[in-house]
Amino acid sequence: MDKAEFKVRYANGLKTRREVLGPEHVDKAIAGQDDFNRPFQELLNTYCWNDIWSRPGLSRKTRSMLNLAMLTALNRSPELKSHINGALNNGLTKDEIQEVFLQAAIYCGVPAAVEAFRCAREVFKERGA
Amino acid sequence: MDKAEFKVRYANGLKTRREVLGPEHVDKAIAGQDDFNRPFQELLNTYCWNDIWSRPGLSRKTRSMLNLAMLTALNRSPELKSHINGALNNGLTKDEIQEVFLQAAIYCGVPAAVEAFRCAREVFKERGA
Amino acid sequence: MDKAEFKVRYANGLKTRREVLGPEHVDKAIAGQDDFNRPFQELLNTYCWNDIWSRPGLSRKTRSMLNLAMLTALNRSPELKSHINGALNNGLTKDEIQEVFLQAAIYCGVPAAVEAFRCAREVFKERGA
Amino acid sequence: MDKAEFKVRYANGLKTRREVLGPEHVDKAIAGQDDFNRPFQELLNTYCWNDIWSRPGLSRKTRSMLNLAMLTALNRSPELKSHINGALNNGLTKDEIQEVFLQAAIYCGVPAAVEAFRCAREVFKERGA
Amino acid sequence: MDKAEFKVRYANGLKTRREVLGPEHVDKAIAGQDDFNRPFQELLNTYCWNDIWSRPGLSRKTRSMLNLAMLTALNRSPELKSHINGALNNGLTKDEIQEVFLQAAIYCGVPAAVEAFRCAREVFKERGA
Amino acid sequence: MDKAEFKVRYANGLKTRREVLGPEHVDKAIAGQDDFNRPFQELLNTYCWNDIWSRPGLSRKTRSMLNLAMLTALNRSPELKSHINGALNNGLTKDEIQEVFLQAAIYCGVPAAVEAFRCAREVFKERGA
Repeated sequence: MDKAEFKVRYANGLKTRREVLGPEHVDKAIAGQDDFNRPFQELLNTYCWNDIWSRPGLSRKTRSMLNLAMLTALNRSPELKSHINGALNNGLTKDEIQEVFLQAAIYCGVPAAVEAFRCAREVFKERGA
Repeated sequence: MDKAEFKVRYANGLKTRREVLGPEHVDKAIAGQDDFNRPFQELLNTYCWNDIWSRPGLSRKTRSMLNLAMLTALNRSPELKSHINGALNNGLTKDEIQEVFLQAAIYCGVPAAVEAFRCAREVFKERGA
Repeated sequence: MDKAEFKVRYANGLKTRREVLGPEHVDKAIAGQDDFNRPFQELLNTYCWNDIWSRPGLSRKTRSMLNLAMLTALNRSPELKSHINGALNNGLTKDEIQEVFLQAAIYCGVPAAVEAFRCAREVFKERGA
Repeated sequence: MDKAEFKVRYANGLKTRREVLGPEHVDKAIAGQDDFNRPFQELLNTYCWNDIWSRPGLSRKTRSMLNLAMLTALNRSPELKSHINGALNNGLTKDEIQEVFLQAAIYCGVPAAVEAFRCAREVFKERGA
Repeated sequence: MDKAEFKVRYANGLKTRREVLGPEHVDKAIAGQDDFNRPFQELLNTYCWNDIWSRPGLSRKTRSMLNLAMLTALNRSPELKSHINGALNNGLTKDEIQEVFLQAAIYCGVPAAVEAFRCAREVFKERGA
Repeated sequence: MDKAEFKVRYANGLKTRREVLGPEHVDKAIAGQDDFNRPFQELLNTYCWNDIWSRPGLSRKTRSMLNLAMLTALNRSPELKSHINGALNNGLTKDEIQEVFLQAAIYCGVPAAVEAFRCAREVFKERGA
C-alpha cells in the first residue's frame, strides 16, 4: 500500500480537529509527538477526526453535544474540558451546554454534573467568556 | 404544603413520559406501582420527566440523542432500549441513531457500541420496523 | 506454612457467608467448585467473608446497606440480587432498602435506580415476600 | 404556580446542606451562582438536599456512609472529599470511615480504596484532625 | 479515493477476526449485516481487527489476555464471553485465564471477578471443554 | 491464631511490592502508616502483593501489562502511573506499553487512551527516560 488513503484521512482529520478544538491546542499536541505517541496521534486524526467526525449524518454542533454527554458519563474531565471548548467553537450556546449538563444530572448522577459544571466554569474563565 | 405544585409536576411529567416512551410502556410501570416503588415512580415523573424533560432549552429529539449517548456510556441496556424506542417516537431516524452509536464507538469503546447496536436491532424488531 | 490460619479464615468466612446469603445459595456455589474456580472461592471465603465481613467495626446490617449502594453504583445486577437477599436476611426492612435505592437515584443516576428497584422486585417475588 | 412549594423545598434543602457539608462550603457555592449554574444549584437544594436527604427513613449518619461507598465506587474524588467532611459533621468516627473504605476495597477494587484513603487523609489534614 | 487501502484493511481484519473469534461466530455477524450496522461492521474489521490486532508489537495471546482484563473491568459480559472463546482459540490455557480473573478480583473488585468466572464457565460448557 | 502465616504473607508481599513499584515509593507508603490506614496497608501487602502477585501462573511482566489495561479501563490515573513505573521495573519496553494503550483505545474508548498516554509521558519524564 502506498498509504495514499491514509494521508488523505490524516490531513482531513487534522483539519477538522483544528477547527473544532482550536488550532493552538492541536498544534501543541502534534508538536509534542514522539515515537511513543505518534501511532496514537495518527489514530486520532484518521479514525476519530476523519472517519467519524467527517461523516455528514450529524452536524458538528450535535456531535459536540453528544461528546459533552458521553464525557460527563465517562468521568473524563480533561477531555470534557477540551470538548466544552470545542462545543463553543461549534456554536453551542452556554444555555445549551447548561441543558446538557442538567440532563446528565438525572441520568449520570448529581456528582457527574457537579464536575461538568466545574469544568465548564474553568473553560469559560480561560476563554474570558 | 398542599402539594399543588407536586400534583402539577407529576401530571405534566407523566404526560411527557407517555408521549416519549409510549403509553403502554408507562401505563404498565404505573400499574405495577406498590408501596415499595411508589416514591421512585413519583421521583421519575416529577424530577426527570417534568423538571428536566419539560425544559424548553432543548428539543425532545435532541434530548433523546443525548440519552442514547449517555445510556451507552453507562452500560444500562434495558434503559437504553426504552430510550431507543423513545428516540424513534421523538422522530429520530435510524440513520441518526446509527451516527450516535458510531460516535459512541470512539468515545465509549467498541464493546459499548456492539451492545448499543444489538439493543437497537432488538427494538427495531419489536416495533416491526 | 501449615495453613492453619488459612483453614480458620476459610471456615469462619464460609460460616458468615452462609448466614448472610443463605445456606442453599452458598452450598450450591461450593458444590460447583472445580479446579478452575477453587482459588477464587477460597479468596471469597477468606478475604471477603472472613477478613472484611467479620470485622467488628460495622454491623452486618450496615455492611448490607453499603453493598446495596456499591453494587447499584457498579452496575452488577446478579451480585446486587444476592445482596438484596442478604440484606433481608440481615434484618433490613423493605423500607430501608427503598431509602438506599432512592439515595442511589441521586448519586448514581436514575437508570441505576431503575435497575435496583427491578432487582429488588425480583428478589421479593422469589422469596414470596 | 406560585412556586410556594419550591421555596419551602429550597430553604429546607439549603439548611440541611449547610448542616451536613458545613456553612462555609455551601455559602461559597451559593455565592458563586450565576445564570449558568443557578438551575443546577436549585436542583441540588430541592431534589437532592430536601427531597432525599430530608426523608426520615434513614439517619444522616447512615446516608453519609452510603455516600462514601457510592462516591468511592463512582470515582468522584472531589465529591468524595466533600462527603468525608460531611460524614465527620454527621458523627461518623474515623474508625467507621475506615471500615467503609475497607469494604469498598473488596467490592470496588483496591485502586478505588487507595484513592478513598488518600482523600480521607487530605480531609483529616484540612480539618486539623 | 478508490478505497484500495480500505479493501485491504477490511479483508485482513476480517481474516484475523475469523481466526480469533471463530469463523462461525464472525460469518453470522457478517451475514446479519444491513444498512443500519454495516458502517459499524466495517469499522470493526478495519480499525479494530486490522489496524490494532494486526500490529506485530504483541502476540495474539497477549492481546487476548489484555481483552479479558479490560472487558472484565468494563462490565461487558457478552463481549467478554466472545473473547474468552477467542483466548482459548489463541492458545491461552484455562489456568492462565484463571490467573487473569484472580488478578481482576483485586483491581476491579470481587463482583467483577464473580461475573468473569461465570462467563468462563458458560464458554467452557458451550465448547464442551 | 499466632498470626505466623500473616507475618510470612506480609513480609513476602512487601518484598514483591518493593521490587515492583520501587523501594522509595513503598517505603514512603509504609512510613506514612497510622491507625487509620494500617489495616488497608496490611491488606495490600498480604492479599494483593502476596496472595495474587506471588502466584506463579503469570510472569510479573504479564501482570504489569494486565494492570495497565485494567487501570486504564477503570480511570484510576494515580494508580496507573504507579503501575507504569512498575511495568518499566518489570521489564516492559516503551513499545509494549504503547501497544497496550493502543489496544485500550479501541476497547475502553479514545479518552481513556488519551489519559493513559499522558500518564506514561509524565512517568517517563520523572524517570528521566
